[in-house]
Amino acid sequence: MSYLIAIDLGGTKTITALIKNKKIIKKIKFQTIKGKSNVIKQLISSIYFVLISINKRKIEKIIIGVASPVDEEKGLIINAPNIKGLKNTNIKKILENKFDIPVIVLNDAKLQALGEYSINQNINSLFFITLGTGVGAAFVYKGKVFSTEFGHSIIQLNGNKCSCKNKGCLQAYVSGRAITSLYYKKYGKKLLPSKIFQLAKKSNKNAKKFVDETGFYLGIGLTNIINIFNPQLIIVNGGLSKPGNIILKEAKKVIRQNRIINWKGKIIISQLQEDALFYGAIYIQGSSAVGP
Amino acid sequence: MSYLIAIDLGGTKTITALIKNKKIIKKIKFQTIKGKSNVIKQLISSIYFVLISINKRKIEKIIIGVASPVDEEKGLIINAPNIKGLKNTNIKKILENKFDIPVIVLNDAKLQALGEYSINQNINSLFFITLGTGVGAAFVYKGKVFSTEFGHSIIQLNGNKCSCKNKGCLQAYVSGRAITSLYYKKYGKKLLPSKIFQLAKKSNKNAKKFVDETGFYLGIGLTNIINIFNPQLIIVNGGLSKPGNIILKEAKKVIRQNRIINWKGKIIISQLQEDALFYGAIYIQGSSAVGP
Repeated sequence: MSYLIAIDLGGTKTITALIKNKKIIKKIKFQTIKGKSNVIKQLISSIYFVLISINKRKIEKIIIGVASPVDEEKGLIINAPNIKGLKNTNIKKILENKFDIPVIVLNDAKLQALGEYSINQNINSLFFITLGTGVGAAFVYKGKVFSTEFGHSIIQLNGNKCSCKNKGCLQAYVSGRAITSLYYKKYGKKLLPSKIFQLAKKSNKNAKKFVDETGFYLGIGLTNIINIFNPQLIIVNGGLSKPGNIILKEAKKVIRQNRIINWKGKIIISQLQEDALFYGAIYIQGSSAVGP
Repeated sequence: MSYLIAIDLGGTKTITALIKNKKIIKKIKFQTIKGKSNVIKQLISSIYFVLISINKRKIEKIIIGVASPVDEEKGLIINAPNIKGLKNTNIKKILENKFDIPVIVLNDAKLQALGEYSINQNINSLFFITLGTGVGAAFVYKGKVFSTEFGHSIIQLNGNKCSCKNKGCLQAYVSGRAITSLYYKKYGKKLLPSKIFQLAKKSNKNAKKFVDETGFYLGIGLTNIINIFNPQLIIVNGGLSKPGNIILKEAKKVIRQNRIINWKGKIIISQLQEDALFYGAIYIQGSSAVGP
């Protein structure tokens, strides 16, 4: 019997899962709390929780996906602009000392991309993008994966201020945080993206115009992805991906107008949704290295 | 004895080389002429020229690098915005019919990147960018290479018009063509980039200001490369790379201000310069496939 604990540590929520023989058997989900010691306490409690009635010696690994660039060798969270207080935290060391179980730390989008790849292994080049609190991304090319801070590629010189402190990053236009804040600036109402999409569907004029604009920005981002990576498959995941179908439609128009290569790939909404990361953990469970 | 013909088909110039036992023994260089049939005639003549006094049966392969996205399987030039008239030209078929020698067609930056990689095989991730008439690029990751239309990534929404007809592509700011045309628009003088750099070095006020701006744009492009690819090594090649040292200095300032990842890589000017492509041809000569 092989057990695995996998954790999705995101900007808004954290999910801790227990996996037995490659199947998710328990999953707990909670809001990511603010501050380093709080986050760590929460993580530890959640691990204890999924361990209830299981001998921890049976747990092969703890695999954590974090919304941050990661030093995989050290298990270090380098810079998590969307999770306050975690900069330069060696989460591997902390959890290994606590539980005496090997801990692997990866960028969340990289792990999710591997999850998507695990059910699409015939695909030569797969670009994964997740639209959540921030924008995460990873690219799988001929079985080799790397995470990419594509959300922080600049699409507008001196443009909107981003959480990374730069100006004009894609993330400053199409992330959940950006959408709420841009809508507030324009129309004075603080709404969740899902609410704005709802209003747009109900033909609210402001919301519709705003959603079209967001679709334009996403379209520019996806055009850049296509021109840069020429992927056979683009998978869109994250909290915005489902209600975001409405922006994807607009985005596809922009792509048709702007891509310069003879692109034959397609764009789909993730079927795995929040489980993509856990599929990724299962995919790399067997490998001795951190992943391809 | 193993012979190879390698051709660098660029927007401004073409170089045809004869390679014997992995060494370049003959090289001819000429302006790329306009129009499909002219280009093909020129290519054929150049091949005849390097074949003088050599039995063509001794030629193992003809390897062509083209400044265009390429369908490698078919040997098709898909779209060469900087070489007029070559769109959808099956250059492989044309030359194989003419010479009865196997022809391989690759994107030029991909071939150049492989050339740079051949002398840097300890490097895990190498980003190659060439600043010539246009902007070419390729990425080598864990020995796998892909070309990327990075020059056509959009850095400015509704920005400068590009040769690909889109607006705001990086190439519309930092290519040779863009530099000449932007300088002309600003100061009414049509100068080659090398001349503008010279003037800037001599402290001509306009030229200096212009070169600093170009450095800013290149810096944004390189920042995006760093955030997206996190490469251990960035190699800059192309006609602008040597006189462009002056813009690279300014660009590095922008990178320090704008990169969000803890980047440990470095940026160098290519040592191989125009021979990078031929090194790439030598590197893939032995392989039966088109390359990694």
